[in-house]
Amino acid sequence: MPGDAPLLERLRAICGDAAVLTGGDMAAYATDWRGMFHGRPLCVLRPAGTEEVARCVAACAEAGTAIVPQGGNTGLAGGATPDESGTEVILALDRMTAIRRIDPVGMTVEVEAGTILQTVQDAVRNENRLLPISLAAEGSARIGGLIATNAGGVDVLRYGMTRALVLGLEVVLPDGQILSRLRHLRKDNAGYDLKQLFIGTEGTLGIVTAAVLRLVPLPRHRATALIAVPDIASAIALYARAQNEIGEALSAFELISGAGLDLISEHMGQTAPVHADWVLLIEAGSSLPGLREAAEKLLEAAFEEGWATDGVLAESGAQADALWQLRESLTEAEGKAGGAIKHDISVPIPGMDAFLQEAGAMLRDVAPEARLNVFGHLGDGNLHYNVMNVAKEDAARVNAALHDMVAAHHGSISAEHGLGQYRVAEWARLAGAVEHDLTHRIKDALDPAGLMNPGKVVPTRG
Amino acid sequence: MPGDAPLLERLRAICGDAAVLTGGDMAAYATDWRGMFHGRPLCVLRPAGTEEVARCVAACAEAGTAIVPQGGNTGLAGGATPDESGTEVILALDRMTAIRRIDPVGMTVEVEAGTILQTVQDAVRNENRLLPISLAAEGSARIGGLIATNAGGVDVLRYGMTRALVLGLEVVLPDGQILSRLRHLRKDNAGYDLKQLFIGTEGTLGIVTAAVLRLVPLPRHRATALIAVPDIASAIALYARAQNEIGEALSAFELISGAGLDLISEHMGQTAPVHADWVLLIEAGSSLPGLREAAEKLLEAAFEEGWATDGVLAESGAQADALWQLRESLTEAEGKAGGAIKHDISVPIPGMDAFLQEAGAMLRDVAPEARLNVFGHLGDGNLHYNVMNVAKEDAARVNAALHDMVAAHHGSISAEHGLGQYRVAEWARLAGAVEHDLTHRIKDALDPAGLMNPGKVVPTRG
Repeated sequence: MPGDAPLLERLRAICGDAAVLTGGDMAAYATDWRGMFHGRPLCVLRPAGTEEVARCVAACAEAGTAIVPQGGNTGLAGGATPDESGTEVILALDRMTAIRRIDPVGMTVEVEAGTILQTVQDAVRNENRLLPISLAAEGSARIGGLIATNAGGVDVLRYGMTRALVLGLEVVLPDGQILSRLRHLRKDNAGYDLKQLFIGTEGTLGIVTAAVLRLVPLPRHRATALIAVPDIASAIALYARAQNEIGEALSAFELISGAGLDLISEHMGQTAPVHADWVLLIEAGSSLPGLREAAEKLLEAAFEEGWATDGVLAESGAQADALWQLRESLTEAEGKAGGAIKHDISVPIPGMDAFLQEAGAMLRDVAPEARLNVFGHLGDGNLHYNVMNVAKEDAARVNAALHDMVAAHHGSISAEHGLGQYRVAEWARLAGAVEHDLTHRIKDALDPAGLMNPGKVVPTRG
Repeated sequence: MPGDAPLLERLRAICGDAAVLTGGDMAAYATDWRGMFHGRPLCVLRPAGTEEVARCVAACAEAGTAIVPQGGNTGLAGGATPDESGTEVILALDRMTAIRRIDPVGMTVEVEAGTILQTVQDAVRNENRLLPISLAAEGSARIGGLIATNAGGVDVLRYGMTRALVLGLEVVLPDGQILSRLRHLRKDNAGYDLKQLFIGTEGTLGIVTAAVLRLVPLPRHRATALIAVPDIASAIALYARAQNEIGEALSAFELISGAGLDLISEHMGQTAPVHADWVLLIEAGSSLPGLREAAEKLLEAAFEEGWATDGVLAESGAQADALWQLRESLTEAEGKAGGAIKHDISVPIPGMDAFLQEAGAMLRDVAPEARLNVFGHLGDGNLHYNVMNVAKEDAARVNAALHDMVAAHHGSISAEHGLGQYRVAEWARLAGAVEHDLTHRIKDALDPAGLMNPGKVVPTRG
């Protein structure tokens, strides 16, 4: 096929006609799952393998056509949705779903980028191993997207972000070359660690097509508790004690507000066994005996110190799952109650109490009618500070005011969701000149034509 | 001071006369600690703070003078030693030693780059926290160097490489700008994670001047065992069982050969309580009760399955320390026995047995007179495959043959020590064209004049 053949024709020749979607067939790919971001792609490509991805990317590069990579389309920042120009190509990885190899001894798994997280979790669990990425969208999020956004979730406290689990990557570069570093090695300091460039950069430097991920032992014992605390300072004191008492076994330390429990009760018909202005959902797991004993001791200490006012330690796996169901219903309940301006912020844990007080006072000033649904990963300093009942035209003002406060507290305006297209302007506003400069240098070095997921993460130069 | 003043004069004006060493004062900096790499620097700079580092770097950039950053000078690959031209400036961080802040609740520590690892370890231990980087040079290695080389050590199995512990960095860029990202956050997905560029790149893209590191809970209980195994396959079977039985508590799984034990006995006067062709030094730690019970159960299983033929579980901290003393004496014993051609390789764990057999057979062919001292971090797939009794003129041939075998086993020729100047040619020989290309693109984007630690990590272009 000659180089000047129309692009669609070339792409069909590469992937086959059925793998190049146009018109109404593109609907599920053109909009994000929440219906918040809408794009109008030129076409949707569904290549069957890495070679096809590479040939598609090379063809688009030659045509000067931009590419938006897409995994499970479960992102919260519009990172996988194209613009409205009708010129961008969505490259979906959803046909590349092979689990190539599970190594339970070396504790690694090699998968294609389109594999669904839960599919991998289930497969490695059969081998007594855990892939410790746990988030609400795990039934539809795909490995490539998790890597491209450096996804977080409820297990980060113990196991780190997705970056910490990536041992090897295969990436198609903006010019169609393939970088193949699918190594099953826990230690590799030979040369620049090039794979880091493609983790958390949301497809702006290349497209992840396959990965080797690190697995961990599957804990045999589990302890789950829901604890009412009198205030945030008590919650943080309990967190510090938990690190002393159960240490590495602590895997989740989640915060839910009383307002959040009310939303769940009202809209989901679920009632929590404890209620207070703030409650904690704490989870620990271990292969060692003695976990429950240590957990009980920790709770005793919490009551003695006055850090807990009420609480329940799950007596069974089913009861533990029910407690987690509360946490996982928050987003849906919030949606049913009319939605919210979502924030994904982190601040240093010792400053969390002051931050929440100052942010609350600021909001009463900026948006007196607002209602809050604050929840998230207190043990990571990461909260979803969601503001409900605010008029659409006030959203930008509320965003900016909250982000300014986060910056004043040395925090991050995007802890685990990434910038995508949603937060890129706020990043651009708050980042320093050196960060802007370095970001553009890296982007220009790898994608000089700016064809990889334009408008995401990297601000467009003025 | 005008821009065309001689460089030394400008540097003295920036740092003060006493902080610009020349002549014989440079001796301790010009040669690595083993005396293997010798350089002839123009001068040694010892700036007192980040601003001074930045001004020194800007002055050198303006003069077109290359800089070799140096931490504790404990590297094993010559990454901190200048060339013999007499034109390169060593920039030593050894006056920047402040521990700025320890946060035992948020579990972070902020330190200047010149702080000695053990100093930080001791300081955080007082707060019931652990900085989990553990290596033989910890009494002299400095934080900046550990980050610049992404150092490994005996705790990687559980806690990951140094990269996994870096939360924030302050870096002086090749043009003298300061990138300041000293965030005490466990989660931060706002924009490209620029700090990754400076971890493991050995000062070729900038100079780390300060860092925020993640801490972990200090385990309260410890179990240490020395186990004789009949063969490598048994060692690996025991490793897999250990992951099932004690899981996250397993922190070290070290291999020592019988030949290594003989070296220790002969040259250090230390006798191991067990002896075999292969022995394992296993360590676990936990804050939970029940660790010892689980460790005893694991050893019972090992004997039942025939994976262990002899062994001792330490009864006291002192006995545990004595077992570790054996492991830590290996390098000194090897040196006293005449030294070795050192290798720092990793291969996937399930292939380790075959690798060792094939490598042994290859060596009997290539260097029949060679004696081996193989030891290291079996649980990470990382061995120091050290070859003794080989003539100097045969070293390159032995290196190349072993590295070819590592490559055939999908391993790494530099697992934890970095490439420095020692292994850069071997990396260049074995890496693919895409890796070369990407490496140079990154280097050129950040250091277009090539003045940051030239000749290290990045091969000189032909």
